[in-house]
Amino acid sequence: MEHSTDLIPFFEPINLVIVGSFKEGIFGGYVAIQSLMRSGFKGEIYPVNPLYKEVLGLKVYASLKEVPVAVDLALVMINARSVRDIIPECAAKGVRAIIVVSDGFAERDEEGARLQKEIVEVARAHGVRLLGPNTAGVVNTANGLNPCPYRGGDYPLKKGTIAVCAQTGMVNPQAFPYRGISFGISKICDFGNRCDVDESDMLEYLENDPETEVISLYLESIRSGRRFLETARRVGARKPILVLKSGRTREGAAASASHTGSMAMDDKIFETVCAQTGILRLDDFSEIFEMPKIFAAGRPALGHRMGIVTFTGCVAVLAIDEGARHGLRQAELSENTRSFLDGIFPGLGKMPVDIGPAMAAVKDAVDRYPGLLKKVMEDSRVDCLFNVVWANLDARILGRYLEAYQQMQSVARKPVATWVYGPDSGVVSETEEQIEELGFPTFSTPEKAVKALGLAARHGIGRRSRR
Amino acid sequence: MEHSTDLIPFFEPINLVIVGSFKEGIFGGYVAIQSLMRSGFKGEIYPVNPLYKEVLGLKVYASLKEVPVAVDLALVMINARSVRDIIPECAAKGVRAIIVVSDGFAERDEEGARLQKEIVEVARAHGVRLLGPNTAGVVNTANGLNPCPYRGGDYPLKKGTIAVCAQTGMVNPQAFPYRGISFGISKICDFGNRCDVDESDMLEYLENDPETEVISLYLESIRSGRRFLETARRVGARKPILVLKSGRTREGAAASASHTGSMAMDDKIFETVCAQTGILRLDDFSEIFEMPKIFAAGRPALGHRMGIVTFTGCVAVLAIDEGARHGLRQAELSENTRSFLDGIFPGLGKMPVDIGPAMAAVKDAVDRYPGLLKKVMEDSRVDCLFNVVWANLDARILGRYLEAYQQMQSVARKPVATWVYGPDSGVVSETEEQIEELGFPTFSTPEKAVKALGLAARHGIGRRSRR
Repeated sequence: MEHSTDLIPFFEPINLVIVGSFKEGIFGGYVAIQSLMRSGFKGEIYPVNPLYKEVLGLKVYASLKEVPVAVDLALVMINARSVRDIIPECAAKGVRAIIVVSDGFAERDEEGARLQKEIVEVARAHGVRLLGPNTAGVVNTANGLNPCPYRGGDYPLKKGTIAVCAQTGMVNPQAFPYRGISFGISKICDFGNRCDVDESDMLEYLENDPETEVISLYLESIRSGRRFLETARRVGARKPILVLKSGRTREGAAASASHTGSMAMDDKIFETVCAQTGILRLDDFSEIFEMPKIFAAGRPALGHRMGIVTFTGCVAVLAIDEGARHGLRQAELSENTRSFLDGIFPGLGKMPVDIGPAMAAVKDAVDRYPGLLKKVMEDSRVDCLFNVVWANLDARILGRYLEAYQQMQSVARKPVATWVYGPDSGVVSETEEQIEELGFPTFSTPEKAVKALGLAARHGIGRRSRR
Repeated sequence: MEHSTDLIPFFEPINLVIVGSFKEGIFGGYVAIQSLMRSGFKGEIYPVNPLYKEVLGLKVYASLKEVPVAVDLALVMINARSVRDIIPECAAKGVRAIIVVSDGFAERDEEGARLQKEIVEVARAHGVRLLGPNTAGVVNTANGLNPCPYRGGDYPLKKGTIAVCAQTGMVNPQAFPYRGISFGISKICDFGNRCDVDESDMLEYLENDPETEVISLYLESIRSGRRFLETARRVGARKPILVLKSGRTREGAAASASHTGSMAMDDKIFETVCAQTGILRLDDFSEIFEMPKIFAAGRPALGHRMGIVTFTGCVAVLAIDEGARHGLRQAELSENTRSFLDGIFPGLGKMPVDIGPAMAAVKDAVDRYPGLLKKVMEDSRVDCLFNVVWANLDARILGRYLEAYQQMQSVARKPVATWVYGPDSGVVSETEEQIEELGFPTFSTPEKAVKALGLAARHGIGRRSRR
């Protein structure tokens, strides 16, 4: 339990000090304070720098010693050479967690690697945990803690159940448009060079974090194989863990080793780790943000039989192909559902349910759409649903789609993945948003939608079999 | 040459008849006329239907016989059972090309398959070519021919060099937001059930189409293996051919066979076809529209050495991984370029060129960005460039990016693929648009950008080796 409580000051500090420059710019202490203020952090912020008197209405302290109270967390953005000496001063103020934003450590050169080793030793000697160095830091939406040091990341994020953690700042608020997403975030963490706090610490913290339901990770390597294996297996049984691991090729692994200063790992070993822990593997950077949505929707999968409702046969074929790659097979409809559908349009009562011809031929087909979707969802032979929506420009049709999703909220709680397409990207985005507001995730391609269902099925069934 | 000229009336008709219902709705003859009018088609349109007198200001003819002139093309959207009888009437009017929009043929049932066989026989007997049935038709941006029968597809498309052809209407204007794209379209063709006109005919037509530089195809199967092999090899040597083939899995192939009524093919055979013809294979539906951009930019690749300029090491690792999958290796910089970059920021002079630390640390780093990018592009050891752009919210920085792309227009003509990321999706889209307006394609993920460079290299080098 020691480790699990260790990270609390990183995410749930009562107050924090920021040691760095407070000049306005695209990066630094000024922006970090702005981010904290705009994201609604309620704790006290103590800027520390002898060259300033005041910044953004806050008093700046000349040194840590002058800060009048005990402090939980420190955000450090000073020259790499000076970080070592600030650690004991932080410890003396009660700080147990330091986010070392500064770069110029192991990712830079030999000298930086030596400095990094030193700060770890000093921190250990003072009972302080380090995040980074070379990190963009953390976010906790529960308390408005967003000390993003980059301009553009200074906004409040929507609360939700997805935790995103990475060996990169590419998941922090300055790099991804979190404002525009429907399924919110619980925590963000950039491990940076990962000199101390690592993915296993984070998994343990998230295991007990009541806000987090699904964990999305970007890793270039694993710091401690055995501990990660044990932790991921235990945590993954409760909360799905999705991992994009780069450095899969020899060339990528070599590049990874040089930019983080950490050892890369053979991809085959990681494949084994996934198999043994139930980790769900991601294939590209966008999936870090996209795939967790199927879990955030809170509709667990209990089978591999995928229902398909589409406007077009082509997308059904692509979906069946992709489904086969992820262990899904096409559902067969019950006799009852078949005859219901055939009653709407002859030949409609089979998988995939291709409503294209009916929509073109039957005048009131669109009015029957909500009932049709409900009927398919209620069929006990259907474990999950891939639904294709044509974002036509007709308001009446769009209204019917939303009605259908509203109805689905109260029928069988099965995973539903939606792909919206159409001639107007504005209408497509708006339709996606409206569907997601109703709790149903949409995906950028048919393949991603089906893959999400496949991941949901693998996790749901894996979990059941582990019980 | 007979085949190549065969498709001219489908795409370059002087006039056309539309046989169908002209009731307002989301589908049908009314919408098709609207589409033609809004897309700027200058030829005469002759609607034919005994139940109407006038539609959208056009006189409606009671029968084909009454149409006062000879006609090139017919668009037919009547009951499947009636199509057979309309063919001789069309032929009598001089029609050599019929787009059979009507569904209810081989994709529906046995009876439909029989009807389909019949219309082919009748058409052959009358020297008429058929597109479809069950097709959304064609588009030719050169003459404004866009008879899209679905609401939402009635807009003029931007002219360009990309031809998109598919065994589905999912590439027609009602299904994809062509208005919002920077790299325009030359031709669109939905083969539908592909009873007559097929992918080999289309390749031959596009081979001689001066507007088309790159061909993107969606296929579920190949109609005539030997002819396709020969045609694709010949055409592909001049114009890159990109193919998404579905039905790759056993399950997908079975589904494909049932919805198009055509035989699926073993994916291994298709893999061989690609290897023998230089066809570039696509992996998901979005790539049909995204990948051709690297060719439309008109910067042929002559080597496999990829330069990377990035704000973050993580994306470089992902890029190197993806590059390795597509035959690209990381470029090494010349001594001259290295010392130039090191002069901007110590350690910058190596691949990947990670400008993140410099941008945060050096006050005027952004002002040196255009020169930096130019220098990397001019390096003779760099065959192509993957460039990562952080769409920060600072107008001055965005201005520098664009300046950099403007400068690149006049230096070495090497392929450049860009990935834009940032905290505001509106600013990201706008930045993408501005970069594309300057002739440089942007991609939705880092992986897609690198894959595009890989396809460009494979095509460029394959073509050179075939000379």
